Amino acid sequence: MAAVPTLLVLDAEPLPRLGRLTGRVRVLHADASTLAELLPSADVLLVWDTASHAVRAAWPGEGPRPRWVHTASAGVDHLLCPELVASDTVVTNARGIFDEPVAEYVAALVLAMAKDLPRTCEFQGRGQWRPRENQRVAGTRAVVVGSGPVGRAITRTLKALGITTALVGRVPHTGIHGPDELDRLLARADWVIAAAPLTEQTYGMFDIRRFGVMQPSARFVNVGRGGLVVEEALVRALRSRWIAGAALDGFATEPLPSDSPLWQVPGLLVSPHMGGDTVGRHDELGAQFVELFERWAAGRPLKNVVDKERGYVPGR
Amino acid sequence: MAAVPTLLVLDAEPLPRLGRLTGRVRVLHADASTLAELLPSADVLLVWDTASHAVRAAWPGEGPRPRWVHTASAGVDHLLCPELVASDTVVTNARGIFDEPVAEYVAALVLAMAKDLPRTCEFQGRGQWRPRENQRVAGTRAVVVGSGPVGRAITRTLKALGITTALVGRVPHTGIHGPDELDRLLARADWVIAAAPLTEQTYGMFDIRRFGVMQPSARFVNVGRGGLVVEEALVRALRSRWIAGAALDGFATEPLPSDSPLWQVPGLLVSPHMGGDTVGRHDELGAQFVELFERWAAGRPLKNVVDKERGYVPGR
Repeated sequence: MAAVPTLLVLDAEPLPRLGRLTGRVRVLHADASTLAELLPSADVLLVWDTASHAVRAAWPGEGPRPRWVHTASAGVDHLLCPELVASDTVVTNARGIFDEPVAEYVAALVLAMAKDLPRTCEFQGRGQWRPRENQRVAGTRAVVVGSGPVGRAITRTLKALGITTALVGRVPHTGIHGPDELDRLLARADWVIAAAPLTEQTYGMFDIRRFGVMQPSARFVNVGRGGLVVEEALVRALRSRWIAGAALDGFATEPLPSDSPLWQVPGLLVSPHMGGDTVGRHDELGAQFVELFERWAAGRPLKNVVDKERGYVPGR
Repeated sequence: MAAVPTLLVLDAEPLPRLGRLTGRVRVLHADASTLAELLPSADVLLVWDTASHAVRAAWPGEGPRPRWVHTASAGVDHLLCPELVASDTVVTNARGIFDEPVAEYVAALVLAMAKDLPRTCEFQGRGQWRPRENQRVAGTRAVVVGSGPVGRAITRTLKALGITTALVGRVPHTGIHGPDELDRLLARADWVIAAAPLTEQTYGMFDIRRFGVMQPSARFVNVGRGGLVVEEALVRALRSRWIAGAALDGFATEPLPSDSPLWQVPGLLVSPHMGGDTVGRHDELGAQFVELFERWAAGRPLKNVVDKERGYVPGR
């Protein structure tokens, strides 16, 4: 290790606040076009631009490379190319920062759909007074798919609103249903919330068969990666009224192209991947990285270490 | 009393389900045009059309009149003309039915504003991908004005979302602040929720001075009667950015005329008085009336009896 390690930041605005590391690290800045060139000289890579897939493309197959990669996101699917998975580079994520914000966002989407707020906004835009009946959320049933900290936070928040919740994870556990029980739970759910990491196992899991299992009154929410959902299947399910509504905060292609048919599907709320983007998160994400960096520099064990084979941070 | 009492219903669709009273009551139906003519022959008036102000206009100054008036609403301001207040006719309301539904509606409005959902719907309508920062609600402060069952239910629901709440009532009490403390609380609130009955004391209480006390980041929600708010003052406060946003579910004039300037005020969500209109409420309201009728017919004391001088059901 050099006396002063080199930290390479894949930049996004606003830049991370790294003042506490002054003098203890040499900071280089990269964008997608310079990342490949700078990677071999870095000890640590901070993926601050979490919308970028540049790491996948730029990660060196051999030779010098960062020993540690931290991403300021919960998801790590945008990083994990086979070469990074196979290497001994440690990957950490921003576990913990987005749990409560995303849970609040889910509560907002669920309540907005129950109270038909998107149509209220539409009617307002046209100056039309159209009182309608709305639905109670207390007493309804939700299935939350993804038993990590985000899914668990969603479950807590929905419970606080009087919603009965079931949590589904990769492996059954106390309070967590296994994948075998998913279809049975989907068939009874008023709300289906997708909050699983995007892995080989979860890619496209919400397909036409699964929308077919849901109740006609069910509504679907995705606050995970867009790849969890077969988008054409969701559109078909909504147009055929197999389910009553949906809200997506993640898409296969982001930004969603302006000519995407998804913008105009009746009953679909399109949210531009902003559920976790709360005021103040940059400071929290920066502070989290600084704390991890201090552990790393002191030779202490890192936290939030991703199981690269599985594609998420295991454990509770 | 006649052997079989006469029940006059001021009708609205769908009609109340009164099957359990078959043979025990003679039912007459009125609309606004026939109410005055039929009132003298009724023992009981059920105000099922709660948007109507016909009772005020039709209530007889003297002579025979119903001994009991029940309204399928929480508010009673649409009934209480001086002649009815002065008479010995008992007035009851639908206390209890709307508490939790309105509390959920407030949660939906608060979360929608924190997460900027109305603008997300606007951007969706234009096919525009515009991620923005959103706000946490946990850790914010709300003042709920109105310490009746609706206000208390709102307080419980907001607390469940991690919001610190203060409840303001007509008289200070354990857990309830008096009117003297209102301005101090308004000055610190992120959310100001109006849920008081409309009385002489509360009419126009949210005026330009009170909006001036609030923080520039504050948002205002009215789920009470429109008369609580000086609408022009709210518009001025929003246009001058004295406060950050507002949502109204009640208006001085309903339906809100299509040429009202309120439809287009930036930062104002116009909801067509539907917060309490949950699926299934007609059955609950009908069952509540039948239960009260059975008490009345048996000579037992009624519940939900309005203090006509004060304009609401007193007590906790």
